[in-house]
Amino acid sequence: MQTKLYFNTANTKAKTKNKLFKAIQEESKHIGYYNLPNQDTSEIVDYSNDFDENIEHIVVLGIGGSSLGAKAIDEFLKPVKKPKRKLHFFESTDPINIAENLSSIDMDKAHFLIISKSGGTVETISIFKYIFAPRPHKENYTFITDKDSNLDKFAKDLGSKVFYLPENVGGRFSVLSIVGLLPLALVGVDITALLKGAKDVQESFFGNGHLHTSLIEKAIFYAKHHTNYNINCLFAYSDTLKYFSEWYVQLWGESLGKKQRHSTFHVGMTPIGLIGPKDQHSFLQLIMEGTRDKSVTFIKIKDFKYEMYIPPVTLAYLESLDILNGVPFHELIHLQCNSVMESLQNKGDIPLDEIIIDQVNEQSIGSLIYYYELLTSLVGELIDVNTYNQPGVEEGKIILKKKLTE
Amino acid sequence: MQTKLYFNTANTKAKTKNKLFKAIQEESKHIGYYNLPNQDTSEIVDYSNDFDENIEHIVVLGIGGSSLGAKAIDEFLKPVKKPKRKLHFFESTDPINIAENLSSIDMDKAHFLIISKSGGTVETISIFKYIFAPRPHKENYTFITDKDSNLDKFAKDLGSKVFYLPENVGGRFSVLSIVGLLPLALVGVDITALLKGAKDVQESFFGNGHLHTSLIEKAIFYAKHHTNYNINCLFAYSDTLKYFSEWYVQLWGESLGKKQRHSTFHVGMTPIGLIGPKDQHSFLQLIMEGTRDKSVTFIKIKDFKYEMYIPPVTLAYLESLDILNGVPFHELIHLQCNSVMESLQNKGDIPLDEIIIDQVNEQSIGSLIYYYELLTSLVGELIDVNTYNQPGVEEGKIILKKKLTE
Repeated sequence: MQTKLYFNTANTKAKTKNKLFKAIQEESKHIGYYNLPNQDTSEIVDYSNDFDENIEHIVVLGIGGSSLGAKAIDEFLKPVKKPKRKLHFFESTDPINIAENLSSIDMDKAHFLIISKSGGTVETISIFKYIFAPRPHKENYTFITDKDSNLDKFAKDLGSKVFYLPENVGGRFSVLSIVGLLPLALVGVDITALLKGAKDVQESFFGNGHLHTSLIEKAIFYAKHHTNYNINCLFAYSDTLKYFSEWYVQLWGESLGKKQRHSTFHVGMTPIGLIGPKDQHSFLQLIMEGTRDKSVTFIKIKDFKYEMYIPPVTLAYLESLDILNGVPFHELIHLQCNSVMESLQNKGDIPLDEIIIDQVNEQSIGSLIYYYELLTSLVGELIDVNTYNQPGVEEGKIILKKKLTE
Repeated sequence: MQTKLYFNTANTKAKTKNKLFKAIQEESKHIGYYNLPNQDTSEIVDYSNDFDENIEHIVVLGIGGSSLGAKAIDEFLKPVKKPKRKLHFFESTDPINIAENLSSIDMDKAHFLIISKSGGTVETISIFKYIFAPRPHKENYTFITDKDSNLDKFAKDLGSKVFYLPENVGGRFSVLSIVGLLPLALVGVDITALLKGAKDVQESFFGNGHLHTSLIEKAIFYAKHHTNYNINCLFAYSDTLKYFSEWYVQLWGESLGKKQRHSTFHVGMTPIGLIGPKDQHSFLQLIMEGTRDKSVTFIKIKDFKYEMYIPPVTLAYLESLDILNGVPFHELIHLQCNSVMESLQNKGDIPLDEIIIDQVNEQSIGSLIYYYELLTSLVGELIDVNTYNQPGVEEGKIILKKKLTE
């Protein structure tokens, strides 16, 4: 993983950098996600190696932090590495979506993972009831929940296998825990390589490698300008990263959209996920000519590992496009990205940076995930919010329960 | 289609409203999209009725305005109305995406629609060359382009069928023209009902129906506050509207992200597409507690036409969720939406409104599309931008051509 900042960080004081790093070192002692790259995964690996070979569908009942991470990784890898089983997600109460989802699953060859911290998630339990009522058999389900939660007690009564969430790991930081690792291992993802990718970033950041300075300077720049550049676009030049964007949107928006800890100010960084080159024909105009409130991070894949060339055919009247002849698509997409970056740089007032991941594999996505988790923690620390809670979503839940009781 | 504004519009002056309406009436005489609901579709209907029954895949080569609209409608209707043929879109130069797309198409049963105004779109022509080189047969292709463009000349030489883009209809406003109607008609969408839905909104707006005041007052509110509430979230409570969001993002962002006509100011309204209830577990926290720079429009589907109930089973230890027992999913999703709206309203400083469409059918989506096109034109007029151009994306294209020539 390589990174490059195109905005000016020369004025960042060493004192500010040191103070930030110390705060994160301190935080990493009690916030659980930091240490996930070093966990022992043998139980997960054994469980998935011994898993019933007749099961072809792994169905996750979970929403938000319980689904977005595994979905991001599955969708990233799927086009290049045929999954061992098909992974499904029930994340909606839209009856049309539920019916459509159900129609794509052979129920006799399906196993369900119920993922909920407390067991109180309305979406998850609604769909679980729907699935469970006609098939109340312990062997169809595996549960992931907090130890001693009501869902844990239910699962134990039923006699199903239960895995526990690690302590102090919030939903949106849980993809590298059992929450993401179990579904991914069951569909054949190499979770050891995934964690290795995360560990590379962890070691580089905490061990004073090249990501140490890069992440700290980027976070300080973002935080310093968070009231003017408050929209952060992630412009990924590969369709494989489409669901990674959704994971990033939750991580960034839900972590940083808060009241400040030491004031009553509402602050927030608005995340936008874009895919290139498609969004050159959509959102790009707004970045180029719209309000100067956006920073843009470009993500490129260094080696697509696909040799596919534009054939050298001349089309009558379209000879001006012969410049495309013989160009490999992987080179074209890089040139497109570089051209857009150059056109934005020419504006002079749009902060840009780039991240280059090696290829579409487990290690790369593991690195990218851990990189964004660290960046979120760093910015959250600087803009003075509690990065790890989400008090704003409780009110709607309480109103819903009231409405349901009426 | 019903709409309701939850923000205060009582102070909107009649003079401002009249002036705006007159400007739009004037504009509608020369901007082509306004009149699309009244077009004669008999040629498209005949062409698709007579289409080769052996063709099972309709493959669109087009990007941005040439693909997003048809995709939005196809994805909206697909879960409830089995398409006659499968619709595919090539919108990327990512070799992994191209290879994956190709693997899902039976080439012997495929027909390709090449959609490009000039024929100069790099993405579209790159992929066209790749498809065309091994199968240079006129009957495999239909072209949609400007009359007398280079692509028109190429298509005529080849001997393929060509349809022409109507005059003064820009890409992102073209879904209800041949650009969207042809692919949709070929997969079995009732394009007459689609246009009927658009016409309902057209008549209501121009004929002083209930949408006249509602649209004008909404646009005036948005424009008045466009520098503080510059992020506009569309929160749709149904997964069927996922790709409608992407269409909206292009329409809104590319139309309104501009330098003003009579100043050098960069202005812009940033569009965000959200899906409920999923994004209650993601972006909602940022709306609730983050910076007060967001307005939110909720879209609901009045009648899902799916009778699917949460079974009345009690789960040990989870008895508190018996409140869900017997609740139909379509009612649950409405209650979830209402609860979130109520919790946001309680904040008092987040502008909300709602749109209720009747059901998942052609007429509803036609209405919704025309509603958003009108709203975009109204806001564009008020914030003093040219709603219909996109000068900001040219520079990157020029740089790319230079790089390709080197």
